[in-house]
Amino acid sequence: MRDTLDTQLNVLTQFQPDLPAAYRDSEVVFLANIDPALQLSVLDQLKGPRLVACDTMNFWLANARPALLRVLERVDLLVVNDEEARELAGVHNIVKAANAILKLGPKRVLVKRGEYGVLAFEPGAMFAMPAYPLEEVFDPTGAGDTFAGGLLGSLARAGANGSGAALRRAIAHGSVLASLVVERFGLRRLWDLSPADIEARRQAFLRLTDFHTL
Amino acid sequence: MRDTLDTQLNVLTQFQPDLPAAYRDSEVVFLANIDPALQLSVLDQLKGPRLVACDTMNFWLANARPALLRVLERVDLLVVNDEEARELAGVHNIVKAANAILKLGPKRVLVKRGEYGVLAFEPGAMFAMPAYPLEEVFDPTGAGDTFAGGLLGSLARAGANGSGAALRRAIAHGSVLASLVVERFGLRRLWDLSPADIEARRQAFLRLTDFHTL
Repeated sequence: MRDTLDTQLNVLTQFQPDLPAAYRDSEVVFLANIDPALQLSVLDQLKGPRLVACDTMNFWLANARPALLRVLERVDLLVVNDEEARELAGVHNIVKAANAILKLGPKRVLVKRGEYGVLAFEPGAMFAMPAYPLEEVFDPTGAGDTFAGGLLGSLARAGANGSGAALRRAIAHGSVLASLVVERFGLRRLWDLSPADIEARRQAFLRLTDFHTL
Repeated sequence: MRDTLDTQLNVLTQFQPDLPAAYRDSEVVFLANIDPALQLSVLDQLKGPRLVACDTMNFWLANARPALLRVLERVDLLVVNDEEARELAGVHNIVKAANAILKLGPKRVLVKRGEYGVLAFEPGAMFAMPAYPLEEVFDPTGAGDTFAGGLLGSLARAGANGSGAALRRAIAHGSVLASLVVERFGLRRLWDLSPADIEARRQAFLRLTDFHTL
């Protein structure tokens, strides 16, 4: 047991991502939740991406903060949950926490609040997107990563730098996909998802939140 | 001490609201949180109001459920928090809980979620309004009642029956007032509130939530 764990840790600590040549000029990059030292190594291999987004977790906040702070200086979009935002900033109020994080480097901070949706903070602007209220949440696993995937897919397709109207549309798209993925086990709901399914849920989101066009 | 408590309980149990004649033809009525037997007594004194809204709390759910169910049969708009909705319906999922409550009589159910805002359920439609993210919440006391006051004030002024677009606008107005009242102690923030202050926060709410007009 102890030997197995040591072997696993060795594999993990020896892991050094080596990006294939074709990936090095990626325009949109998502640094998923992993050791910030590896996130830095990935950043160093990239040829000036247009948009870098980043996820992290409490473990790195507590155990690799210096490296994480170096990552944040190079990130456009930080995607964290509310507890991570609080721990990173060292303050409980979520508006204060987000504003403190904006001073660490990220141009925008997205705070995921599970069933309550997402808050997005830009300098001088906030955006709130509720989660879609569902009668059945079959399996919430992967909802946060699906949100991030939809978010970045939308920004990549729009050729956008992750601010303003494009960011809001991307948050809506990520929220739509996350609301669908939890309806079945794992990522199965995404396998047979059609553009019409996505558009139908997007329209439902618009109806859910609309008091602008009344 | 014991005598004082008994006296207080006697006063409470002997309290029978007797509406002044001028109040009996009120068009819009809010049955605030009190013994459902008294809410029923108030309803019996009214001459066919256009809109009846109702609040309640866990204590009555546990200790006066039969009377409360008789109240709900005569209510247009139930305003409760998420825990009360769950306890009333006996189901955890908030969509299922709201739909179960709609079957008990109320034409609409508004579920307050504190710092996360409000969900409104009508037959076949949902509306989500986030709370305004504030850097300082000085005192949350009275936020729920301020929300209800703003909600009903808006519906009364619009001559509305509490559905559709008028309900959404009313929820926005209640949310605006609630977001202001928590900025100072008690209800003091309301004392010197100007129409311009209210409109400014309403515009901030529109900016906070807008991905409809992009």
